[in-house]
Amino acid sequence: MSDAALLFRKNGYHATGLSEILSASGLPKGSLYHYFPDGKVGLAMAAADWTTTGLVRIIDDAFGPAPDYRAGATHYCYKLARLFDISAHIDACPISALLFDGPENMAFRTHAEALFQRLIDSIAAHARRFGMSDAQAQQAAETLLITVEGGWTLARARRKSDVMRSLPARLFPSHP
Amino acid sequence: MSDAALLFRKNGYHATGLSEILSASGLPKGSLYHYFPDGKVGLAMAAADWTTTGLVRIIDDAFGPAPDYRAGATHYCYKLARLFDISAHIDACPISALLFDGPENMAFRTHAEALFQRLIDSIAAHARRFGMSDAQAQQAAETLLITVEGGWTLARARRKSDVMRSLPARLFPSHP
Repeated sequence: MSDAALLFRKNGYHATGLSEILSASGLPKGSLYHYFPDGKVGLAMAAADWTTTGLVRIIDDAFGPAPDYRAGATHYCYKLARLFDISAHIDACPISALLFDGPENMAFRTHAEALFQRLIDSIAAHARRFGMSDAQAQQAAETLLITVEGGWTLARARRKSDVMRSLPARLFPSHP
Repeated sequence: MSDAALLFRKNGYHATGLSEILSASGLPKGSLYHYFPDGKVGLAMAAADWTTTGLVRIIDDAFGPAPDYRAGATHYCYKLARLFDISAHIDACPISALLFDGPENMAFRTHAEALFQRLIDSIAAHARRFGMSDAQAQQAAETLLITVEGGWTLARARRKSDVMRSLPARLFPSHP
């Protein structure tokens, strides 16, 4: 799945061919259709799932050892900056890639909504652990997701991870 | 240009055919290559320019009559929510669409960076007019762009413009 996820993130849905995925993964075509009867559509959604699971792990790693929500959110932004550097500025957000490449495909949108919600719920669980109410935690988690998503897009345009490291100061401005 | 911009935003770069653009615009193929010698690549960049100019007009309309920066930013988010409703939840951000669809195309990235900067500069000019220093204005403008960009993506996944109207409370939380 990691091969397919990488290709979709690098090249987008339309520009990624099934034959390319098969040759990267070494799988025979028959086994692909066995696991993904609807072919590329199902495979793209599974690849986005796979990457979302990785992002949930990064969220848990960032917030787990943090002393408070602000420190956890800051770690998360720094971890994403490192991920951005490793992926050589190429990768799209795996979830929003579904939105860009399947605009007429309602299944993609519903799936993207559910995956974003999984990330929001993961962050909100940590926020509650740090004493926020349900409403506060939901609000804080959505704000972090929105900021990270927009930051990643600007970082891709600039081909620099600095934007990601600038996000904590935007999320938690110090008030004089 | 509006026909081409709409098709790219709706369907993405790869899924939009030149023939589709020609039939939507009613232009003969020869005149397309006269104005855009590199064909679809040049056309996609011109379409993103065209939409960016429209966004700068929306920024000026939002901030122009506002009494302060916060009110201007709030108007801008509400205007984008209305735009989202009109465009039937389909449109991608025209600038980030360049990033998604031409990941190997460095010309697209450089162009997307310049267009994002145009939006940031437009917002920053209003921020300075309201008394912010250059550094404060740049910071505020980048934060607004990042938030609007991430908000638009989440709104597309949810197929609801509510996210756009929730942005001002995230940008300007009231501190007790």
